[in-house]
Amino acid sequence: MTEPTVAIVGAGFGGLKAARLLAGAPVRVLLLDRNNYHLFQPLLYQAAAAYLEPEQVAKPVRAILRRQKNLTFRVAEARGVDFARKRLITAEESFPYDYLILAIGGQTNFYGLAGVQRYGFSLKSLPDAIRIRNHILACCEKAVLEKDLLARQALLTFAVGGGGSAGVEMAGALAELVQGVLVKDYPELDRDQLRVLLLEGQGEILPGFPAELCRVARETLGRKGVAVRLNTQVADYNGRELRLKGGEKLPAATLIWTGGIAAAPLARALKVPLGRQDRILTEPTLQLPGHPEVYSIGDATYLEAGGQPLAMVAPAAVQMAEKAVANILAAVAGRAPSSFVYRSPGLLATIGRNAAVAQIGGLKLRGFLAWAVWVVVHLIRLVGFRNRLMVLINWIYDYLFYDRAVRLITHED
Amino acid sequence: MTEPTVAIVGAGFGGLKAARLLAGAPVRVLLLDRNNYHLFQPLLYQAAAAYLEPEQVAKPVRAILRRQKNLTFRVAEARGVDFARKRLITAEESFPYDYLILAIGGQTNFYGLAGVQRYGFSLKSLPDAIRIRNHILACCEKAVLEKDLLARQALLTFAVGGGGSAGVEMAGALAELVQGVLVKDYPELDRDQLRVLLLEGQGEILPGFPAELCRVARETLGRKGVAVRLNTQVADYNGRELRLKGGEKLPAATLIWTGGIAAAPLARALKVPLGRQDRILTEPTLQLPGHPEVYSIGDATYLEAGGQPLAMVAPAAVQMAEKAVANILAAVAGRAPSSFVYRSPGLLATIGRNAAVAQIGGLKLRGFLAWAVWVVVHLIRLVGFRNRLMVLINWIYDYLFYDRAVRLITHED
Repeated sequence: MTEPTVAIVGAGFGGLKAARLLAGAPVRVLLLDRNNYHLFQPLLYQAAAAYLEPEQVAKPVRAILRRQKNLTFRVAEARGVDFARKRLITAEESFPYDYLILAIGGQTNFYGLAGVQRYGFSLKSLPDAIRIRNHILACCEKAVLEKDLLARQALLTFAVGGGGSAGVEMAGALAELVQGVLVKDYPELDRDQLRVLLLEGQGEILPGFPAELCRVARETLGRKGVAVRLNTQVADYNGRELRLKGGEKLPAATLIWTGGIAAAPLARALKVPLGRQDRILTEPTLQLPGHPEVYSIGDATYLEAGGQPLAMVAPAAVQMAEKAVANILAAVAGRAPSSFVYRSPGLLATIGRNAAVAQIGGLKLRGFLAWAVWVVVHLIRLVGFRNRLMVLINWIYDYLFYDRAVRLITHED
Repeated sequence: MTEPTVAIVGAGFGGLKAARLLAGAPVRVLLLDRNNYHLFQPLLYQAAAAYLEPEQVAKPVRAILRRQKNLTFRVAEARGVDFARKRLITAEESFPYDYLILAIGGQTNFYGLAGVQRYGFSLKSLPDAIRIRNHILACCEKAVLEKDLLARQALLTFAVGGGGSAGVEMAGALAELVQGVLVKDYPELDRDQLRVLLLEGQGEILPGFPAELCRVARETLGRKGVAVRLNTQVADYNGRELRLKGGEKLPAATLIWTGGIAAAPLARALKVPLGRQDRILTEPTLQLPGHPEVYSIGDATYLEAGGQPLAMVAPAAVQMAEKAVANILAAVAGRAPSSFVYRSPGLLATIGRNAAVAQIGGLKLRGFLAWAVWVVVHLIRLVGFRNRLMVLINWIYDYLFYDRAVRLITHED
């Protein structure tokens, strides 16, 4: 009897974890991703803010999994699944599977705001981060040459939409880029014209965090030079000007949209029942209803805990990977699957240098201590010894010299 | 009396050197480049071969020159010069100058081979290097999925056109990428199908080097897995197949063309007398005939020494910058200009890890010693403390682990 094939779609946190857990198991593993690298999403904003080189927040999948004998990796984009024939379909060919783990991840949700989608930046992929970095620096170079005051104000206004942890981290890093580096690089620019805005639709940033930490985070952002605007909803954007609900207009040549997230488009193509945000509905065992050999894990999975949908975060994806692999190995051995239960490791959001907020169990941390926790957690998690070393050097350099190492505009605009 | 303005076009080795030499001089300096960074061209091939991160071979001009008080930097592409009105013309505006230093650099010369220009890669810019890296890695991923033997052979054949030092360095680095890393990353590929070709039109590689070192370099390339073909001229290329003069056809999905170099296109737009390779003819003082306030330095300058045109290399650009600045300061002080004399620091070409050939004065070096000289020379020259540190770490890591750190395909093909 040949060993069963476990196909995994996506080499994000969940897919990669599942692949690794299957090393040594009596199965063949086929891992597919449309990119040849695993992206370390939690540090992506640092590449966008010219802190880190893009190559430092990603690592080739083949380099990570080179030693895993029972694994085959393919760069290919899954287009759909033939559940009846148990085949995974890509543009080039189709792959048979016995078990399938969908770890397809998320994409930016623009909530139907066509202008924001067209002219705003999302921050989900490595090219996204490179585009943002190039755009911000190009805006400064253009502002130097721009004689019209309003047009210059737009070029020097960097708006972030969405006050969740992604938006808070991006805005904090941008403020430090602006105040710590760009004002020195561009002495000819009016310091007061350089603005970082964080626009949040609700009454407070960092939803899900304790109110006390939200307030601390908001004050810290303010001190670092971020203008936080609560109860501020974006109605439209044309690349030069933001229109808010209520009619107010803000000149801004940059809008980084972190305001929403949904499942990757493959979820819809599967033609299976979806929950909110197009997320794939699963049984508590992570199996798809009616397809017990198919599992969904990570951001694109819709499961509730305590009446709330699970957060779309890396720890949930990793824990789901553990459960899906355990259930597949149980099935291979003829045992029954068990249900997934999420154990939250806590909440953590960084606000630039020396500042973060964290809740770990009952413990609430803030300021430098929370930031130190954040640094340690992310360095440990960052895949690969070498990336860790390089990132650490970059951070230490930045910390000592208050400089941004990477601020190249690598592509023509 | 206001201080005269010295405009400099191009922030390559020559332009940057000129700008720095003018620090503290009684002039205002305007430096223009179409990119916001200085590119360290001698290591560009390492970014193309996934050795170094692109950000490690470039540094923002504003970061380099931040402390220079009499300097203004602009990202803008020069389109021409109004010599009569003494204005430098860009797409957006024009800048007045009293003295002008043209340091416009070179571009790849395809010698009218339209197919090579269209489907081949040049290796002159940072985007060029990123494109080559992405393409090579994408070829491997495609080869894994390719069932047609000939098509797979083409995908796995990496041809370098031109056996000068750029071609030798590129081919050596590619061979090490292929033999040291890709064969491990892609165990499913047939090792014998992975080929690196170096095509040289003349009877020997490394023109200008002593015959003995040329032979050593050729043998070293062979040992590292590069098939060196002498007296082999490319007649046409269609992206899948190379046609050689004589009719032979070679399947190759990759052709990196280092076979020729010419002055940047601005040289033609100036409508001044040009020499071979469209290089700008100057007086021995580096002044343009009839325009004593305009100087040309670096690759795009046509000057002969001993009946031969000067080599298009960094040391020549730097020495010309010194002379042009000295002559401008002489003119400001009412003194006469003096003639440029090139002092060659020697010849140096590296052939991957542990091997290089060098001629310094009467001394001929080869093997590890020449390579050590190469490492030291390039680390010292590489602009900026941090880049130096990061590059050193990358090199040491590579040296110890025989691994390629950077092998991401960062853009969709």
